[in-house]
Amino acid sequence: MDRMITVNVELGERAYPIHIGADLIGQTALFAPHIAGSSVTIVTNTTVDPLYGDTLRAALAPLGKQVSTVVLPDGEAHKNLGTLNLIFDALLGSRADRKTTLIALGGGVIGDMTGFAAACYMRGVPFIQVPTTLLSQVDSSVGGKTGINHPLGKNMIGAFYQPQAVIADIGALRTLPARELAAGVAEVIKTGAIADADFFDWIEANIEALNRCEPEALTEAVKRSCEIKASVVAKDEREGGLRAILNFGHTFGHAIEAGLGYGEWLHGEAVGCGMAMAADLSVRMGYLDDTARRRLVDLIVAAHLPTKAPALGEKRYVELMQVDKKAQAGAIKFILLKRFGETLITQAPDAEVHATLAAAV
Amino acid sequence: MDRMITVNVELGERAYPIHIGADLIGQTALFAPHIAGSSVTIVTNTTVDPLYGDTLRAALAPLGKQVSTVVLPDGEAHKNLGTLNLIFDALLGSRADRKTTLIALGGGVIGDMTGFAAACYMRGVPFIQVPTTLLSQVDSSVGGKTGINHPLGKNMIGAFYQPQAVIADIGALRTLPARELAAGVAEVIKTGAIADADFFDWIEANIEALNRCEPEALTEAVKRSCEIKASVVAKDEREGGLRAILNFGHTFGHAIEAGLGYGEWLHGEAVGCGMAMAADLSVRMGYLDDTARRRLVDLIVAAHLPTKAPALGEKRYVELMQVDKKAQAGAIKFILLKRFGETLITQAPDAEVHATLAAAV
Repeated sequence: MDRMITVNVELGERAYPIHIGADLIGQTALFAPHIAGSSVTIVTNTTVDPLYGDTLRAALAPLGKQVSTVVLPDGEAHKNLGTLNLIFDALLGSRADRKTTLIALGGGVIGDMTGFAAACYMRGVPFIQVPTTLLSQVDSSVGGKTGINHPLGKNMIGAFYQPQAVIADIGALRTLPARELAAGVAEVIKTGAIADADFFDWIEANIEALNRCEPEALTEAVKRSCEIKASVVAKDEREGGLRAILNFGHTFGHAIEAGLGYGEWLHGEAVGCGMAMAADLSVRMGYLDDTARRRLVDLIVAAHLPTKAPALGEKRYVELMQVDKKAQAGAIKFILLKRFGETLITQAPDAEVHATLAAAV
Repeated sequence: MDRMITVNVELGERAYPIHIGADLIGQTALFAPHIAGSSVTIVTNTTVDPLYGDTLRAALAPLGKQVSTVVLPDGEAHKNLGTLNLIFDALLGSRADRKTTLIALGGGVIGDMTGFAAACYMRGVPFIQVPTTLLSQVDSSVGGKTGINHPLGKNMIGAFYQPQAVIADIGALRTLPARELAAGVAEVIKTGAIADADFFDWIEANIEALNRCEPEALTEAVKRSCEIKASVVAKDEREGGLRAILNFGHTFGHAIEAGLGYGEWLHGEAVGCGMAMAADLSVRMGYLDDTARRRLVDLIVAAHLPTKAPALGEKRYVELMQVDKKAQAGAIKFILLKRFGETLITQAPDAEVHATLAAAV
């Protein structure tokens, strides 16, 4: 499995390539075209640095750049202003300038924080994403969403900021815990469900291969997910409308994450459960037939993801959804399913929302 | 003096008007076109809120929006991540959404922090600037630079983000301390010096009227400064090249501010002294004749601005200038003067820089 596939995200002057394949982190040639300045700062965490830090530094060595590394604590609980400031401290401490390239080596938390730091440091420096989890390969690779959490809401502080390139190394998934692999599969399922019925069928047929971390299946899943997301984002870079469909499962999912405290459930687990809830609401409101909902729930279960929501209380769920970024003046917008590949965005009657919440726990 | 002048900053889809005149803060009609959502958050400080907060809230009342106010501590020393977070706390506490408009009511610190908060909150919400100091009216009104300081450097963390409109109320300058008025005149002088010899002559002829805070002179000074800066920024929104000339006096000036600790000297005072130093270096390097340098220094003195630099030590000055955002790989770029209206950007030999530093203290 030495095939490398490149998906191009078409965003005019902000266009960039996503390279997908096995053992890419060590390939100097993939980084060389995207590092213009004289220095590089790698941002990673205590889990990933021992696994892939040396491989990346060895790949960069022939380029003759000044390379420094910032190692952050691992986990969603650290995706906050204090940890972000550690990146700024390191950049200023190493005299990083306006041409210094940041490289995010890690999962979604590292990618989101590094991208946001790159967006803000001296009002913008280049960065490269090297996502090492399936979730970050299929999700944060495309879309330019960067940011941090606030105690009152997830990703509330951030920027739209595009990387120079994404290097999605499928080989890095060999060291990924099974629970995190499943969390990534959740976003793959989401992408099929909202945008491509054929891809949804393919996921159903290949779910065991994905669970077993087979490189060929993973490469295909990452490629199709990135292509679909890239086509949505190219039409709506700053989330004016269409792009909101990518938040299928996220309205309920974000409430679960915020309600339990970030880090208790993985983002993908919350999205898995959130998709089951959104499908339930879709059926209750008469948009989706129950057979499709069952197929979706069965696939979520087959991916070893939760479909039973934590008992936060219905009132708390509604409160949490009202502070979601997609809400306006307290009105919650749900992304619902009509059939695989077709969505709609709508408010929902309180009674139906409460019925879904009651059925989900 | 009821004349209102509008300068349009031409930035395509990010274009916006700057309204300049006396007693504009109370005019509902100036705000109405720029507030689309259902809520407004005013960000101000403990000095300005008692002076103009009620006037602004009264102007907004007829629009029927939910209005909240965040009152921050006053001063450059508070332009940091911790104070920025107070804005985010308030926005999330009041359930501000993606259409909430932020209004910055205050000087440059309030404008920079509010603009940056607007750039980051939910990855971008609209904001209006109501600058209440001369410096912020002529400087931060145009250019979209927002941000905060880091202990190791000024404005190191920020974004380019344009307001919906700027309401520059000349009447608010009546309550401005003389020292802050002078700091604003420093940027007016800078604008004339780098871009428009006729305007420089006009400032020389009207410096006493500006010192006396005469509305007609102030309106003209703000108008010409904004026009000149707008024309530079329109050609170079993200500071690729031309725009760097606006940093005349700032390389030395930022070193003074950082070296003394932010807040010890006002930004405009540091720029005043920094211009005298940059002119000195310009003469030493053979670009500027000494008669022009003397005219500039005389005008800085007439504006009651310092021309004698604090004794930080030459080594420290160089260190501080090396971490300036304009430096690359430690090489310092100076904006020098050839004549009024004409600049050049260059590195300088150590010997000349040290001679300027030695002569300035």
